[in-house]
Amino acid sequence: MAEATPRQKIVIIGLGLIGGSIGLALKSAGLSNIRIIGHDVDGRAMSRARKRGAIDDSDGNIITAVRGSSCIIIAAPVMAIRRIFQEIAPHLEENAIVTDTGSSKLEVLKWAADELPQTVNFIGGHPMAGKEQGGIDAAEPGLFKDATYCVVPLPNASDGAVQAVLSLIAALGAKPWFVDPEEHDRYAAAISHMPMILSNALFTMARGSKAWLELSRMAGPGFKDMTRLASQDPEMELDVITTNKDGIVHWLDRMQEEIDHWKELVQSDEETLFQALHRASLDREEYIQHGPREPAFQSRSEMPENAELAEALFMGRWGRRLREMTKFYEDKAKAAEQVRKR
Amino acid sequence: MAEATPRQKIVIIGLGLIGGSIGLALKSAGLSNIRIIGHDVDGRAMSRARKRGAIDDSDGNIITAVRGSSCIIIAAPVMAIRRIFQEIAPHLEENAIVTDTGSSKLEVLKWAADELPQTVNFIGGHPMAGKEQGGIDAAEPGLFKDATYCVVPLPNASDGAVQAVLSLIAALGAKPWFVDPEEHDRYAAAISHMPMILSNALFTMARGSKAWLELSRMAGPGFKDMTRLASQDPEMELDVITTNKDGIVHWLDRMQEEIDHWKELVQSDEETLFQALHRASLDREEYIQHGPREPAFQSRSEMPENAELAEALFMGRWGRRLREMTKFYEDKAKAAEQVRKR
Repeated sequence: MAEATPRQKIVIIGLGLIGGSIGLALKSAGLSNIRIIGHDVDGRAMSRARKRGAIDDSDGNIITAVRGSSCIIIAAPVMAIRRIFQEIAPHLEENAIVTDTGSSKLEVLKWAADELPQTVNFIGGHPMAGKEQGGIDAAEPGLFKDATYCVVPLPNASDGAVQAVLSLIAALGAKPWFVDPEEHDRYAAAISHMPMILSNALFTMARGSKAWLELSRMAGPGFKDMTRLASQDPEMELDVITTNKDGIVHWLDRMQEEIDHWKELVQSDEETLFQALHRASLDREEYIQHGPREPAFQSRSEMPENAELAEALFMGRWGRRLREMTKFYEDKAKAAEQVRKR
Repeated sequence: MAEATPRQKIVIIGLGLIGGSIGLALKSAGLSNIRIIGHDVDGRAMSRARKRGAIDDSDGNIITAVRGSSCIIIAAPVMAIRRIFQEIAPHLEENAIVTDTGSSKLEVLKWAADELPQTVNFIGGHPMAGKEQGGIDAAEPGLFKDATYCVVPLPNASDGAVQAVLSLIAALGAKPWFVDPEEHDRYAAAISHMPMILSNALFTMARGSKAWLELSRMAGPGFKDMTRLASQDPEMELDVITTNKDGIVHWLDRMQEEIDHWKELVQSDEETLFQALHRASLDREEYIQHGPREPAFQSRSEMPENAELAEALFMGRWGRRLREMTKFYEDKAKAAEQVRKR
């Protein structure tokens, strides 16, 4: 009699909102040939994850957890990832796939290149999903449904490993998008990290006012929505900011310029102001109804067909950019601003 | 046989989200002795309001609509209110109650004082409620549930008329709050109108970027929540801005200062940054969980017990402030800033 094929051991390190939701989504996808082991420094998170059915079993020892595993998903806070790399590196199987879910990618890819053995495949990831509440109790299998999932492989990751991560993303219901790590961080600063600071700033401005009691009395759903991000876990926020400081400051500068522009509009004639408000309203509705215009992305959301193309598109570029990062970033930012001001 | 008491005729002028929701809320409150007549310049809004049961009947003629009515609720765009006052003024019953729902109060009260006869009672109102979608189809009876409802009477309004408006607000499920019109506009600028501009600015900054396609691809729920207000009706936004321009510019200046403060925090040591993020998160959670601290408001959310007290608290002050408005505003703003910077 033939032996049954042993089930693949998938390990989720970090059982918070993201790690827990990945577990729940994979379980509800009904994949029969995998076994999900969860690890967290917090024993309660492990027991809650077991009870909620996000994992098949837990292992409080990170070393035995990763041993024999073909795929390790690190859903821990960004600043913990380097230490986790160091801890697991000597115990990883040859050809194992390691991926993460951190919201900054340049630092994480540097750490992976420095700390992980060349024999494993590191493919950075960043699901563009989240909600106000954190932690395993807030986890849900549908969290990643239709969300963009950024995919940022290290140059030495094999095509097969990248394909495996794409399958994982498909199982979560998310849409993969290949992106250069430095571009990722710049975009994330603009669309995610800076708005997070802006949300904090709006809240602290109102909260710090002498009239806070009156202001809070008058606050409607708009103020609440706009300050929602200020309620997020401060440790998570700290991690994000620490690993993407320059990008955030750059976009805060841009935001102040945009506010200058709106101050002018508010004080200009009604027709000019109305046109600006009308345009913004139409543009946002178009975006909300139809999402990002697809054609511009299709070419990038598909995996490069061969290794050479991949090298040219992402990996070589990423290597060069890693070296030239700071200068490139500044030049690009200046150029973009000049274009905007013309 | 005694004649049945004739039902009170309540008129709602403007059958959009707010007017429609007022109608639905009053109907669902089951008040048996009222008859709600709706008027709108848009015939479709009137027929939809009838079909949705927000009004008992409609009247396309604003003059016959208000004739014989004891209570007129103007839920039209702010900039239309003056014209409506002019149209209805000669046809109002003696002692009729006129109220509005506009989001700026100083201009509206000036218009009421200028245009309405002394024989009617004008009591300005502003429910702190709303949602992304506008129009009669988005109206719902629960829109005002637990919302703060600002109450701003003109000095000549009778106690009885104010009481009647408080009953109306109670029927909507909202919480009345007496406020000076100039204070109202300053607070509204800080907590509602400026955030509306900020929401527009965040959206246009991202939308205007060369990388918009990539940014929109990566946009998560945070960006969507923060730019929600940019989707509002531009005509409504224009009205709000036009009647509260100085307040909005003042608070946009303050917002830019607050962003400066956060730029410093982002670039300071981790402990300082963490403390700021932690504080903001705790403060917002406290506010979301417990609302504005109540004791500071109780005295103001109750109606002044006698006319003299009322005069001293609101009406006399409002008269003085109307004259001293600009200077007072600027001094207050400067003082508040000095306190903040100490």
